Amino acid sequence: MNVTLSATLAANEDIERRRRAGERVLNLAFGEAGLPVHPALRRRLVAASGSNGYGPVAGSPDLRAAAAGYWSRRGLPTDPDLVVSGPGSKSLLYGLLLALGGDIVLPMPSWVSYAAQADLVGANPIMVPAPPGEGGAPDPARVRSAVLHARARGRTVGSLLLTLPDNPTGTLAAPETVRALAELARELDLAIISDEIYRDLVHDPGTPFLSPAEVAPERTVITTGLSKSLALGGWRIGVARLPDGAHDLRTRLLAVASEIWSSPAAPVQEAAAYAFTEPAELAERVTRSRRLHGTVARAVHARFRAAGASVAMPRGGFYLYPDLGHLRERLGVGSSAEFAALLLDRHGVGVLPGHAFGDDPAALRVRVATSLLYGTTTEQRLTALHAADPVALPWIAEALDHLDEALDGLATERHAVPARRVPALVPTAAAS
Amino acid sequence: MNVTLSATLAANEDIERRRRAGERVLNLAFGEAGLPVHPALRRRLVAASGSNGYGPVAGSPDLRAAAAGYWSRRGLPTDPDLVVSGPGSKSLLYGLLLALGGDIVLPMPSWVSYAAQADLVGANPIMVPAPPGEGGAPDPARVRSAVLHARARGRTVGSLLLTLPDNPTGTLAAPETVRALAELARELDLAIISDEIYRDLVHDPGTPFLSPAEVAPERTVITTGLSKSLALGGWRIGVARLPDGAHDLRTRLLAVASEIWSSPAAPVQEAAAYAFTEPAELAERVTRSRRLHGTVARAVHARFRAAGASVAMPRGGFYLYPDLGHLRERLGVGSSAEFAALLLDRHGVGVLPGHAFGDDPAALRVRVATSLLYGTTTEQRLTALHAADPVALPWIAEALDHLDEALDGLATERHAVPARRVPALVPTAAAS
Repeated sequence: MNVTLSATLAANEDIERRRRAGERVLNLAFGEAGLPVHPALRRRLVAASGSNGYGPVAGSPDLRAAAAGYWSRRGLPTDPDLVVSGPGSKSLLYGLLLALGGDIVLPMPSWVSYAAQADLVGANPIMVPAPPGEGGAPDPARVRSAVLHARARGRTVGSLLLTLPDNPTGTLAAPETVRALAELARELDLAIISDEIYRDLVHDPGTPFLSPAEVAPERTVITTGLSKSLALGGWRIGVARLPDGAHDLRTRLLAVASEIWSSPAAPVQEAAAYAFTEPAELAERVTRSRRLHGTVARAVHARFRAAGASVAMPRGGFYLYPDLGHLRERLGVGSSAEFAALLLDRHGVGVLPGHAFGDDPAALRVRVATSLLYGTTTEQRLTALHAADPVALPWIAEALDHLDEALDGLATERHAVPARRVPALVPTAAAS
Repeated sequence: MNVTLSATLAANEDIERRRRAGERVLNLAFGEAGLPVHPALRRRLVAASGSNGYGPVAGSPDLRAAAAGYWSRRGLPTDPDLVVSGPGSKSLLYGLLLALGGDIVLPMPSWVSYAAQADLVGANPIMVPAPPGEGGAPDPARVRSAVLHARARGRTVGSLLLTLPDNPTGTLAAPETVRALAELARELDLAIISDEIYRDLVHDPGTPFLSPAEVAPERTVITTGLSKSLALGGWRIGVARLPDGAHDLRTRLLAVASEIWSSPAAPVQEAAAYAFTEPAELAERVTRSRRLHGTVARAVHARFRAAGASVAMPRGGFYLYPDLGHLRERLGVGSSAEFAALLLDRHGVGVLPGHAFGDDPAALRVRVATSLLYGTTTEQRLTALHAADPVALPWIAEALDHLDEALDGLATERHAVPARRVPALVPTAAAS
């Protein structure tokens, strides 16, 4: 077992330790939504506080019906019997890897846990670079040869994964790319896992969005959850929509679920059942969240651009993925891990090295999460959520000033040696 | 992957389906504690309904400190840094199998999920019969040869598991047996996993109880949770106490946890932190629960004995494990699965076949769970909890009458052919 503590969680714990020790640290490392629980969801949890039965492994009938409705409203009519819930979409992704079997094609870079999970189940992640500006989708032009090559080496390749929109890049694959991948998956007989946990946080709701489930409904599993759109990360709730007619896969996934986690917490399921019906009060919260995430992500994007970084415009979620390769010689750093360590140690800015996402360790790309800038108290966060110009709020402006200072510092100081050598944050498999 | 839906969960879903369809079914198949949430725990969940951060993978500092206190009060001084929480002790057991590696020695019979989890991680369960009357402990006289035999075949054997007190038999291994196993584990260099989730439900608190952690603290992991003692199964919360100095194991377990489930639901963690401090109001609830479980389990035991079954007196939890082999010829059934199917189909009594627990498929042993007899409403369950003579309550008396009828029916009717053929409920590995 090569897996280490999830790189995002590890980085966050390190940064929080530094904060408690009195260091001034800007946490741009952690993908927590940074917003409070909506009172309507708190009320539902409270009303469900007497629920203590184990309940069905797939989740309560109410939750499955609500999630089916959620997808149906997005052009994907869904049988509630093909909805399976879990304690976070992360757990479902793990269960799917076990249930589907075989190696998995992943976009490079991609979320830290995909490759780590593949390692845990004894599968190989096959990392295929994303096309420029279309993070989250392995480049269709390269997928076929990667799969055929793996098969020629005797490997079984079972699935292909997309993240729509993407973590870490904050970009969104174009519909034609998704379509090409779905067709390729059919040709190569691969299951598709489409991680759409950031779907409702596409900043501009007019952006064309295609789920591979619309193209290849017979082979696409969609996963989502409430951690991002409704900031319920700590409540641990996700749902998967299995392919049409996939009763065997359902049986296998439920077998895995029943032996590892049983089901999400019962009171949380009841709150989630309400959330997936998308009542007006929650739809409004998602809309406000999406605007706030977009506004702040674009403000941070502008600062990285001004500092000379190469960085795609963020389209969804709360991430950017700048490349600061132009500073390589000036800084004397040779890897994203060294660069992230320097940024943290010398400038008090925590980001995650691209290496953690399976990217080339030598590239100076880092993932910047902007969602912890909204404040540290519920009051600040709600103020940010309702502000016409959130980046003008003093605590956000101050955070952006801290970032400006750090970027200025990088551009003007000369660092002869790396700040420190750091161990790789990710399994070796993720870097292959 | 041979694993099917957890046998207990599958049986419960089947029985609940029959109930909804109007069948009169006595559910003696499911190990749910059958009691309501204590109001103090509901209040804590409500107070924590705004907690939505991911938090540390190991669990909140409060939860870990409280769990450390819980063990310290039981003669096991505990470093909170060696406490890891998870969404149910089931998830922790799975994580431990992955983190420890190697095959695992299990008592035969034993809880359905141990062997299934071993199968999921690619390990072999090495089933070693428990000594008579001491379910939950593989017979020390047979463990050495089983381990040496497996090693001679090139297998790596990593751990040995005990369930104290036991599911499915409701018995408790004697301290000398636990001591012998702990010493044997040291000699054979095996980790010990001691599943003590029913510890606080030993019916007579004066019963001698020895945890292997007292004998071999350097190699024993204890797991427990609140699903049984405080009936919080649906809340999904468990904790593990790692061996003294086991920082490497902690790192590996947290790595697994961080990639599969992240952490238990944050509001549940806060309620659990309160529960593990064992305030008087909750200690009283556990005491009452223990008495109720003991009283009803003994009443059911008496009925099976009266029907001629061979069955050990239950000592903890809410299970019995009768052997009805004396009815084999009369009933014309050749396996525990056929016998359980006959009992359900002909007599409306749901139990689990011993086969599901890794026992000899041909033996007519079944697991009987008595905890769903307390009632179907919160009011009935609270009445049972506070009754001086719970078995005299009409709904419990009626359930026992149903059982009597069924046992009478088995003893007097002659069934020429099995009621139906049923597929095995468990992975083949579990039966080996």
